[in-house]
Amino acid sequence: MSGRVKGFRFAGVHGGVKVGNALDLGLIFAAEPAVASGVFTMNRVRAAPVVISERRLKTGLCQAILVNSGNANACTGKRGRQAALALTRAAAVSLRVPTALVVPASTGVIGAQLPRENIEAAIPALVEDLSEAGATRFARAIMTTDRGPKVARAEVKVGRTTCRVLGIAKGAGMIHPNMATTLAFVTTDAPLRRATLGRLLRRATNLTFNRATVDGDTSTNDSIYVLASGAATNRVIEEKSAAGRRFTGALTEVLESLAKKIVADGEGAEHLGRIEVRGARTHGDAVQIARTIACSQLVKTALHGCDPNWGRILAAAGRSGARFNPDHVSMQIGDALIFERGTPMMTAKTEVRAAATMKRPEYAISVTVGSGRGLGHYWTCDLGHEYVRINADYRT
Amino acid sequence: MSGRVKGFRFAGVHGGVKVGNALDLGLIFAAEPAVASGVFTMNRVRAAPVVISERRLKTGLCQAILVNSGNANACTGKRGRQAALALTRAAAVSLRVPTALVVPASTGVIGAQLPRENIEAAIPALVEDLSEAGATRFARAIMTTDRGPKVARAEVKVGRTTCRVLGIAKGAGMIHPNMATTLAFVTTDAPLRRATLGRLLRRATNLTFNRATVDGDTSTNDSIYVLASGAATNRVIEEKSAAGRRFTGALTEVLESLAKKIVADGEGAEHLGRIEVRGARTHGDAVQIARTIACSQLVKTALHGCDPNWGRILAAAGRSGARFNPDHVSMQIGDALIFERGTPMMTAKTEVRAAATMKRPEYAISVTVGSGRGLGHYWTCDLGHEYVRINADYRT
Repeated sequence: MSGRVKGFRFAGVHGGVKVGNALDLGLIFAAEPAVASGVFTMNRVRAAPVVISERRLKTGLCQAILVNSGNANACTGKRGRQAALALTRAAAVSLRVPTALVVPASTGVIGAQLPRENIEAAIPALVEDLSEAGATRFARAIMTTDRGPKVARAEVKVGRTTCRVLGIAKGAGMIHPNMATTLAFVTTDAPLRRATLGRLLRRATNLTFNRATVDGDTSTNDSIYVLASGAATNRVIEEKSAAGRRFTGALTEVLESLAKKIVADGEGAEHLGRIEVRGARTHGDAVQIARTIACSQLVKTALHGCDPNWGRILAAAGRSGARFNPDHVSMQIGDALIFERGTPMMTAKTEVRAAATMKRPEYAISVTVGSGRGLGHYWTCDLGHEYVRINADYRT
Repeated sequence: MSGRVKGFRFAGVHGGVKVGNALDLGLIFAAEPAVASGVFTMNRVRAAPVVISERRLKTGLCQAILVNSGNANACTGKRGRQAALALTRAAAVSLRVPTALVVPASTGVIGAQLPRENIEAAIPALVEDLSEAGATRFARAIMTTDRGPKVARAEVKVGRTTCRVLGIAKGAGMIHPNMATTLAFVTTDAPLRRATLGRLLRRATNLTFNRATVDGDTSTNDSIYVLASGAATNRVIEEKSAAGRRFTGALTEVLESLAKKIVADGEGAEHLGRIEVRGARTHGDAVQIARTIACSQLVKTALHGCDPNWGRILAAAGRSGARFNPDHVSMQIGDALIFERGTPMMTAKTEVRAAATMKRPEYAISVTVGSGRGLGHYWTCDLGHEYVRINADYRT
């Protein structure tokens, strides 16, 4: 699955935002204006690049995304807005495209002004760096506290043509979904109409990024962008066709893979947990229970200690706001049944099995809360010393 | 203010719940049936003693509260309910009062069965231990991960008589209010009607315990009990009288003091922070913003690092769900103005002052979000390594 997404080039250079020579400036460039859509943070405090991107994507077309890491350009007032506008203008001039087709994205510390001159000076080198093989450099350039680049790919057949979907994301902290979380960029050479692309993006985001948490904090910069060049084939994908369903599957697979990578890379995290809830009254109730368990500090520290402390899981479910009868609850950690219809089943042997499961890098905790048809899941990670170390000293 | 609350005796002994000889069994006994009220956890998963206490307090009378620490008797099914019932019966026999006037309370690990025989065997010694000066022993007997006993007192004049209010609480983890949090026991010798007492308790709880958080986790056992002996005077306190207002003040003061002690003693906490929000559209919005800031993992780790990272505070406010204009926000840490009407005011000097404030054991962070009349506050603490250490290994 190493085939390139047709019609896109990528770049990553050092733009003088981070200290040293770390990559901190990225660019995605489409040979022709691409059909584009985006989902953005629901946080009322929105960074300048979020506001500008959302406005410019309203046309449904986009040709370039300029991203910096190391600085979120959030809570920076008028000066921050002007910097973001000026930088997209500078990129547009270098790329010889209209400014309205260039969108900005930023991630990093909140409240500091962008080093606008440094970035502006680096733009020619950034444009020079563009290549079809540049996705990994781009992925590195957008990292903040990430342990590594996050890239996911999928393919989808449209007629006899193979279309490709490439997703690139960053994020390890201030992660909690609300519409979208962190920065993610999806490119595809499949041909789609703007309305179709927007609907499919919102649906896939809801099932993936909106079910992932590291620390319950929704950021000011969360954005997912998707650009479709249509360069693979002329046959436009209809939403309700077989190809449309396959494309939805591929997009969801790419976003799911990125969301899991983000949670697994949660600051200081050693375990990726899938919280599965069944038997709730509605799907909404199931997701609400799964979310409350996934966000509980006490559950997350128990995951860190590989401690099958099911009482904390049940207590979190109980405060979720969803209605269920505690006497009908059953729970499994991996395949160890530890609670059945309101009664603890924890023997020394089950405890050993559950604890062994919890030492794995990835595992599932399943909670059945009744006999309803509501199903839902959430991705979470453990809360350990490293999270505290990173976040008690991040800025100073 | 060392005067005793008339009509009550207290006890604390080792009852064989905790290992070693630690106090783990407490008793409050009223010479005559006292006017009583309680508020209990909103968690759907409720411990056996919560269910029994709530039912028995419906009569409006109570003569004894039997409390154990080291075991929450939660998620313990039918066997747990029977144990709680049997233990109140044993206490009633020893105290020579009707079982219906004895209520149980438990705190500690969830999901383990009570060592019923051990506790039953200790009840005669517990009754023997009752004394007017026993409040501190009682306060010690109900501790779990608390660093020390939590006791608060207030006095209130009713005519020429001084009535006393004594509050005793426990709690350091799984602390997040929803109706009531942790265990708290208030005794007073003031004479009040049951309906008055219930209303005043709910109001005072809402302003104090329901505005305190350690880790956002509402427990299965949260309860506040208040018993009024009326032994100080025969003059019944009317809610709307001057004495009623003074009593409300005294009760609120005692609960506020206990709530602050609980958050200051938050597991691993080194700082107690008061998050104050002004200028919101409504009081409800203000409390919602304050709560979201108070619960943010990123804010709490910044408090631990004494890092005036105001971007995290503003980002938390932004995701609270309350409506406000980010350009109208101002923020102070202690008396250092760090953000004014949407613009960062952080100079090297302000940063030093804010960081110095954050090294104190207690300080306020004030956020003004507009020019509305909505006011609200929340108590929170920092999230540090010690919290992770305690909670990654608590049970195993």
